[in-house]
Amino acid sequence: MRPVCVIGLGLIGGSVLRAASAAGRQAWGATASTVDADAATVDGYRVESGVDTALQLARERDAIVVVAVPLPALDQTLSAIAVNAPECLLTDVVSVKAPVEMAVRQSAPRTRHIGGHPMAGTSASGWIAGSAGLFKDASWVLTVEDETDLDAWREVAQLVLDCGAQIVPATAAAHDDAVARISHLPHLMAAVLAAVGADGGMLSLALAAGSYTDGTRVAGTRPELVRAMCEGNRGPLLDAVDDALGRLGAARGALASTGSLGATVEAGHRAWQDHTEYRNSRRSQDRIDLSSPDARETLLGLGQRGGRIVGLDGDFALTG
Amino acid sequence: MRPVCVIGLGLIGGSVLRAASAAGRQAWGATASTVDADAATVDGYRVESGVDTALQLARERDAIVVVAVPLPALDQTLSAIAVNAPECLLTDVVSVKAPVEMAVRQSAPRTRHIGGHPMAGTSASGWIAGSAGLFKDASWVLTVEDETDLDAWREVAQLVLDCGAQIVPATAAAHDDAVARISHLPHLMAAVLAAVGADGGMLSLALAAGSYTDGTRVAGTRPELVRAMCEGNRGPLLDAVDDALGRLGAARGALASTGSLGATVEAGHRAWQDHTEYRNSRRSQDRIDLSSPDARETLLGLGQRGGRIVGLDGDFALTG
Repeated sequence: MRPVCVIGLGLIGGSVLRAASAAGRQAWGATASTVDADAATVDGYRVESGVDTALQLARERDAIVVVAVPLPALDQTLSAIAVNAPECLLTDVVSVKAPVEMAVRQSAPRTRHIGGHPMAGTSASGWIAGSAGLFKDASWVLTVEDETDLDAWREVAQLVLDCGAQIVPATAAAHDDAVARISHLPHLMAAVLAAVGADGGMLSLALAAGSYTDGTRVAGTRPELVRAMCEGNRGPLLDAVDDALGRLGAARGALASTGSLGATVEAGHRAWQDHTEYRNSRRSQDRIDLSSPDARETLLGLGQRGGRIVGLDGDFALTG
Repeated sequence: MRPVCVIGLGLIGGSVLRAASAAGRQAWGATASTVDADAATVDGYRVESGVDTALQLARERDAIVVVAVPLPALDQTLSAIAVNAPECLLTDVVSVKAPVEMAVRQSAPRTRHIGGHPMAGTSASGWIAGSAGLFKDASWVLTVEDETDLDAWREVAQLVLDCGAQIVPATAAAHDDAVARISHLPHLMAAVLAAVGADGGMLSLALAAGSYTDGTRVAGTRPELVRAMCEGNRGPLLDAVDDALGRLGAARGALASTGSLGATVEAGHRAWQDHTEYRNSRRSQDRIDLSSPDARETLLGLGQRGGRIVGLDGDFALTG
């Protein structure tokens, strides 16, 4: 098994380091945060003194490099990679994919890069919040583009499976559109809902029960994390916000003119049913031949249908 | 203890009948639903053959009448009250208060009516979904207006306390504004968010994790319940929707022009903190003299500050 070098040891990076180690891989990390570095060392993990040293070791041992730094620290990390491990097998866990793809092409063009995004997390952060089991049964996007090297893809896929997750193949653009709708917009709506509720004063807060508490839960996430995530996906998020403004405006118009919220409430309920059915559905078990010339298309078709890859068997990816 | 007559034996009415009985009160009910009537009878509760009979018994025994029917059935129930128990001590658990107040004045003007709204419930409905413990520690609004008879208020307050809830005093108008913000708007935002997510297709649903699931949970409520609740509070809900449209539109503008979501995300986080602090705060223990001429003002001031009444002691309401 290929060793793993994790740059950034917060919630996600720290959990990758733990999970890769638990899967029996040689693994080490580096981080600019002395708090995280100390905590990881105390927990018995190997933390190199600096990012450069960690990357030089990755080059020596032909490790997969996992970039788990916040988006604003990405460029600096990629520059370090270009110097210390310029041709490494590279993946990342940044929550937006097209901008990362572009940054890699610019700053570390000789790496074999596969973009990744584990759909797991908590509102807590830092090494201390992570665990080897964080990714258990979570969806983990791995990008597939026309030029994707499927040998590299398979190697990163094996690491993702070793972490306990299931792989959803998608283009970087499709990923960014989807997460704008189901992650970034929900954070923005939660912020708006929280503020409109609190504008009603203490009486409103005294009466707030399940619907407000559920609808505002992610407004408890640290603002700088929410901003980095949402602002980093500006174009797709603008589209999603426009859709939400359109639907909320239509509801307003209907309520004011006819007094009916039927269309809005029923569309929402149908969507909720779709999501619930999706979560309870059994997915078909197939094999995708990664050596076939149309493997990329087949992978992307699987992802578009909401399918996942749950295993690898030689040249074959197993769906389920 | 004054007997209790509950009209409507769904989730809330059925739970009031159970809780009042458990508190040692003589209690009976009536409902237009044969399913709920049969289920309550099987569970050992007294269900009269019709609403008229139940109300005649209430008149005989000077019971508190609790109206727990959906808003569309309110007028018919009030007409039955005007005929069979025209001067009864009356409360209701309908989720909107000003329209009920108005309907009572029109249809059953001689009753001593105190509006009520327990902030408890589940997405399930019917007798079968209820329980004697549903209201444990829940907020239960009781309306206070200039003309409120505080003797009647105290009697209804004792029933609410017997059900295990805590009383939040508010005017009907202030209640309706508050629930528009913290209950009706959250249901509408959940519907909008669910639909925008599902518009992204199966890939979006496959990637949906905590923020989408939390933010859309109440979109699973039966659409006719959500519509009845939201459409019945049209004016205040329009104001709350306008506030949400304004804030979401401002976020859109800021993201498009400056790329920053700072103002939106931070306002949402502060509001979340306010709500969390409110929930964790210890409330002051005071006594409000209900026989004092400024008792109504004192009660309303308490509610505006997010305070609750947790007990009664003779002429005094105990806050906490």
